[in-house]
Amino acid sequence: MSTPPVTTAAATAASREAFYQRLDARSMAPLWTRLKSLVPKDPTPVGVPCLWRYDEVRPYIMESAEHISAREAERRVLILENPALRGSSQATGTLYAGLQLIMPGEIAPAHRHTQSALRFVIEGSGAYTAVDGEKTLMAPGDFVITPGWTWHHHGNEGSGPMVWLDGLDIPMVAHYNATFREDHHAEAAEIARPTGDALARYGSGLLPVGYRAPSLNSPIFNYPYARTREALHALTRAGDPDPHLGHLMRYVNPVDGGWAMPTMAPTIRLLPKGFQGLPFRSTDGMIFVCVEGEGAVEVGGQQMAFAPRDVFVVPGWTSYRLRAGVDTVLFSFSDRVAQEKLGLYREERSPG
Amino acid sequence: MSTPPVTTAAATAASREAFYQRLDARSMAPLWTRLKSLVPKDPTPVGVPCLWRYDEVRPYIMESAEHISAREAERRVLILENPALRGSSQATGTLYAGLQLIMPGEIAPAHRHTQSALRFVIEGSGAYTAVDGEKTLMAPGDFVITPGWTWHHHGNEGSGPMVWLDGLDIPMVAHYNATFREDHHAEAAEIARPTGDALARYGSGLLPVGYRAPSLNSPIFNYPYARTREALHALTRAGDPDPHLGHLMRYVNPVDGGWAMPTMAPTIRLLPKGFQGLPFRSTDGMIFVCVEGEGAVEVGGQQMAFAPRDVFVVPGWTSYRLRAGVDTVLFSFSDRVAQEKLGLYREERSPG
Amino acid sequence: MSTPPVTTAAATAASREAFYQRLDARSMAPLWTRLKSLVPKDPTPVGVPCLWRYDEVRPYIMESAEHISAREAERRVLILENPALRGSSQATGTLYAGLQLIMPGEIAPAHRHTQSALRFVIEGSGAYTAVDGEKTLMAPGDFVITPGWTWHHHGNEGSGPMVWLDGLDIPMVAHYNATFREDHHAEAAEIARPTGDALARYGSGLLPVGYRAPSLNSPIFNYPYARTREALHALTRAGDPDPHLGHLMRYVNPVDGGWAMPTMAPTIRLLPKGFQGLPFRSTDGMIFVCVEGEGAVEVGGQQMAFAPRDVFVVPGWTSYRLRAGVDTVLFSFSDRVAQEKLGLYREERSPG
Amino acid sequence: MSTPPVTTAAATAASREAFYQRLDARSMAPLWTRLKSLVPKDPTPVGVPCLWRYDEVRPYIMESAEHISAREAERRVLILENPALRGSSQATGTLYAGLQLIMPGEIAPAHRHTQSALRFVIEGSGAYTAVDGEKTLMAPGDFVITPGWTWHHHGNEGSGPMVWLDGLDIPMVAHYNATFREDHHAEAAEIARPTGDALARYGSGLLPVGYRAPSLNSPIFNYPYARTREALHALTRAGDPDPHLGHLMRYVNPVDGGWAMPTMAPTIRLLPKGFQGLPFRSTDGMIFVCVEGEGAVEVGGQQMAFAPRDVFVVPGWTSYRLRAGVDTVLFSFSDRVAQEKLGLYREERSPG
Repeated sequence: MSTPPVTTAAATAASREAFYQRLDARSMAPLWTRLKSLVPKDPTPVGVPCLWRYDEVRPYIMESAEHISAREAERRVLILENPALRGSSQATGTLYAGLQLIMPGEIAPAHRHTQSALRFVIEGSGAYTAVDGEKTLMAPGDFVITPGWTWHHHGNEGSGPMVWLDGLDIPMVAHYNATFREDHHAEAAEIARPTGDALARYGSGLLPVGYRAPSLNSPIFNYPYARTREALHALTRAGDPDPHLGHLMRYVNPVDGGWAMPTMAPTIRLLPKGFQGLPFRSTDGMIFVCVEGEGAVEVGGQQMAFAPRDVFVVPGWTSYRLRAGVDTVLFSFSDRVAQEKLGLYREERSPG
Repeated sequence: MSTPPVTTAAATAASREAFYQRLDARSMAPLWTRLKSLVPKDPTPVGVPCLWRYDEVRPYIMESAEHISAREAERRVLILENPALRGSSQATGTLYAGLQLIMPGEIAPAHRHTQSALRFVIEGSGAYTAVDGEKTLMAPGDFVITPGWTWHHHGNEGSGPMVWLDGLDIPMVAHYNATFREDHHAEAAEIARPTGDALARYGSGLLPVGYRAPSLNSPIFNYPYARTREALHALTRAGDPDPHLGHLMRYVNPVDGGWAMPTMAPTIRLLPKGFQGLPFRSTDGMIFVCVEGEGAVEVGGQQMAFAPRDVFVVPGWTSYRLRAGVDTVLFSFSDRVAQEKLGLYREERSPG
Repeated sequence: MSTPPVTTAAATAASREAFYQRLDARSMAPLWTRLKSLVPKDPTPVGVPCLWRYDEVRPYIMESAEHISAREAERRVLILENPALRGSSQATGTLYAGLQLIMPGEIAPAHRHTQSALRFVIEGSGAYTAVDGEKTLMAPGDFVITPGWTWHHHGNEGSGPMVWLDGLDIPMVAHYNATFREDHHAEAAEIARPTGDALARYGSGLLPVGYRAPSLNSPIFNYPYARTREALHALTRAGDPDPHLGHLMRYVNPVDGGWAMPTMAPTIRLLPKGFQGLPFRSTDGMIFVCVEGEGAVEVGGQQMAFAPRDVFVVPGWTSYRLRAGVDTVLFSFSDRVAQEKLGLYREERSPG
Repeated sequence: MSTPPVTTAAATAASREAFYQRLDARSMAPLWTRLKSLVPKDPTPVGVPCLWRYDEVRPYIMESAEHISAREAERRVLILENPALRGSSQATGTLYAGLQLIMPGEIAPAHRHTQSALRFVIEGSGAYTAVDGEKTLMAPGDFVITPGWTWHHHGNEGSGPMVWLDGLDIPMVAHYNATFREDHHAEAAEIARPTGDALARYGSGLLPVGYRAPSLNSPIFNYPYARTREALHALTRAGDPDPHLGHLMRYVNPVDGGWAMPTMAPTIRLLPKGFQGLPFRSTDGMIFVCVEGEGAVEVGGQQMAFAPRDVFVVPGWTSYRLRAGVDTVLFSFSDRVAQEKLGLYREERSPG
């Protein structure tokens, strides 16, 4: 070793900077200037807590029918966009949510895409979703699945407007850059099986001998609220709720007992009258719908009251508490199933 | 090597025999004298086809109540013993079946054992099975599970006799020499959960978040016939039956989508009016119950007509054909689940 | 209710007996006279502890070559028959074991059967097993699998006799009455892949992308002792052995991480010098081979010393303790994998 | 209906726009103006094909040691940043890659993070990675895993520089906003198990009886190249390569037979001399390292020649062909495992 390297701080900084410039020309960069931001200590929540009161939102939904038809819109949906993520079409860091309206006599034309979609019915009657050759009639509280890459369309054969919440994994599929989409040659895809076939075949405690599932989604594509509600109320007779979460159930794929969908984790819970939940947080950002009852969520120092049909968001890794004035049912969904499969899911319970 | 061995046939036979004698003294034996019988070309069916007409059997069941009480008998059951396996308490090579009677006001006292049991309800109302702290009321056509090593007892709170078919894996558990049994200190084990809790919790398309199954059996322990029947009839609207088997469904464990029990494979099928099944055989011996309708099974050159509540057996690897005069529902169970897990199950479909 | 039933004990016994006779004519039987024997409190061990000293057995093995050729015998094997189960060809309640000899130049002709077989090599070199088109050379300590229903034959291309232990699930497959067997048209089935292919392809920490296993058996069909031995000795450097079982490892199916075979559970263990195992029992009857070292097993009040190549049996649910004078390696197999799948396996550890 | 809505195009456009403004104030947006961009027909590749020639890059790597120590840098890595994704620290849409240098005597201090990391060793000897209390020595071609949330550090006890490729799921974990990170109190975490323990225990065709995996990553954390190379060459003796992909193998988790890591799918392949691959594309963007041999990849109309230690990227859903002048080994990794779990993975083979 001949000459010792120049060691004044200025020289070092300058030479490093010059080095970085030369790296840059080679499509390289020093990790050490970025490490702390690339691999931070803890998650910084993506998006903010927010709530859409249905009585405030509903006029806009109805007005949308004056501006565009289901056919022209393809899907007449008002995106619920997180106020901190404007322009992204996201409710949370990985998920999309919107409120879809279909008017009597309309059809939202058939297409398919690699994104999986869930529907949670908010109001109305007489509309249907058709998936892979079967129609299902939708009633408030029903949970409906459109598996990725299945042909689906919607129609309203009733006499009033029908509204549901759409949840899609659009941002997640975009992250993997695996979006494919195809429009059906016909407005309505062919119906090949009677209504109720999938529920009878896959959702009655039985499965056809030798059945092989065609996808990672549940073959039951409508979980009717009547049955779900009965189950939730049965739970209240058997024991106390989880002190943080209430009586919490997940929708299940009967083929393997896992989550009903591969990318989105749908759950439903009953908070008994007077429930005062203890604080909880988890790495998955959640989108809730109030189905019955009334209560409030305390999140990020903010109190948000909710009533039936309201939609609200709790960002990931943000502590929240749920309260219920009367027996209250909340539907929710998040990316928890994806995080579990990837080994990323974490949760934290606080004593209060 | 000096002297060549003696090679006359007589000498050889004699010396072999002497060798076998010397082996015998060492607890050894030549495989080559036994190979063909130990490892035959094909299965020789165990047991024979047989049928118990319920109208003929019922008087005996009722008479049994005059001879012994449920308490004294512990379980007042008439074993259905395969005519070719007398003394074995077996209906097939691996399974036990019997008809159990419980009279009003009786209790069949609580015990547990490593054998799993299934019940298929034949007649009556007002009786219950209690499993692990929950009672379920039983109605005709209900399929009820008692998982291995769970406390269970039965009672009749109705006003008439109640009869069901018991299916147990007694011979299979004996084969593995893994039988354990324990009597409960009380006649009736404690009831800790409300009736219907398990069905609500595990059989509604939902599962509690974080639920871990305590055994390999389904946590749903009563699959009510009302729901099953509706599912079977829905199938008839969606397509043609399997030409050999009819509309065949299996009872499912919601935790993993597998068979509802680890040792016995319960199925139920609808044969539409006029069904003329093509020949079929499989390695599992099967026990059938006619639930509704009427028909016949042709098996081993024999024709056996069946009506509701009749029980019949088709031994393994014996070809059979099912026929139905009217819409007919058949429950059946076998050891197919065990054979599948062990890589042994085979089936064969013949064109007719 | 008119007349009360006759209640003198004699009358009761007589009328019951008459009832039983009438049941018998209908292929029925009262459960209550058999319940306690059908469903006993605890397992009564099947078979007795026993040991075959290799130095005593070897002369018989070698003599067998004078009495019959491999071709004539199909498999020249001396069955190791449990002294308490003579005539059954069983070492335990569910498993068969034997010692097979193949002489230089001989071929044990190709066949297949639904039984799975394992080989544990005892002595010699130069012989091979061919499975599904691949030959594997066998060396002492190698563990070789013949999956059910795969063509296989053996040959000896060396200059001395070769002996291995055969383990088969013959009694278990017989219990399910699912035995099928076929002889190959040629003495030696065709060899289509180079020796070592399966180990390279499936046993190197890699699997071919898209590989689907054709059976429930491991696609690695020779687990060479050199690698196994190295692994066992590595364990001794990392920590203390299980106080009951020693350093116990199981052979694994790389496709799913489960046991290497669906019906037989093969394990190998190292007992460090001076090991004094605490008492243990489990519901599976076990067949052991001493590979290296020396020690003793205390079982059922009996002490059996073992040296390399000795084979011994510990019946199920029989407490035993293992001791080792020097570093000792024991191979063993049982039906534990089947019992686990069926929910029957139990074990019990005693403090000493 | 009274007055028909105003229908001139201008009025419609204006009223829609006004409606959108009012929606905006409520954190809502019309889906129909965004649908086609949110759910496009096909993926538009993220990033561009690119290659870093090791002989060009190596001087920069070595120079980095003059600018910063491993201790100061925490990890002295040059990020390989996709030229079309500058500033993102990404090589593909979901993955990070970099070249890490550790000089003799240095330690890269212990930390842990929820990101999983893989290392593929490029040059040098004498360095180690320590994971969860075990050190593994690293040699060129070794594939080393650091499971998420395990303590790990690196050290160089040799006499020359050591370089490896780092692959991390940083962008994917960021997408789920599930990044946690912790620094160890000591520079080097404690070593509790001997070197080679994990490979012996989990990578020898055996697993400890009763072993439960602590994470979704393989417990083998070094897959040595010597064994991998032998396996690859064995494949060339058994049959022809896949005409698109060559002899392609995946690194496997012995606990379940799945991919070795839950978020990144590591593979290695041998292209035999003269291999001219047919076109192929899949939804996962891939990062390759040439281990041995030489060849070229044709991708996106571009020809990129590669030699040992070169790193190159093929973006997702971009058709490519591989060619090899001599027997050539390529390591690669992508997010395929995540896409498979989420139901998103697709591939397409073209005839040429």
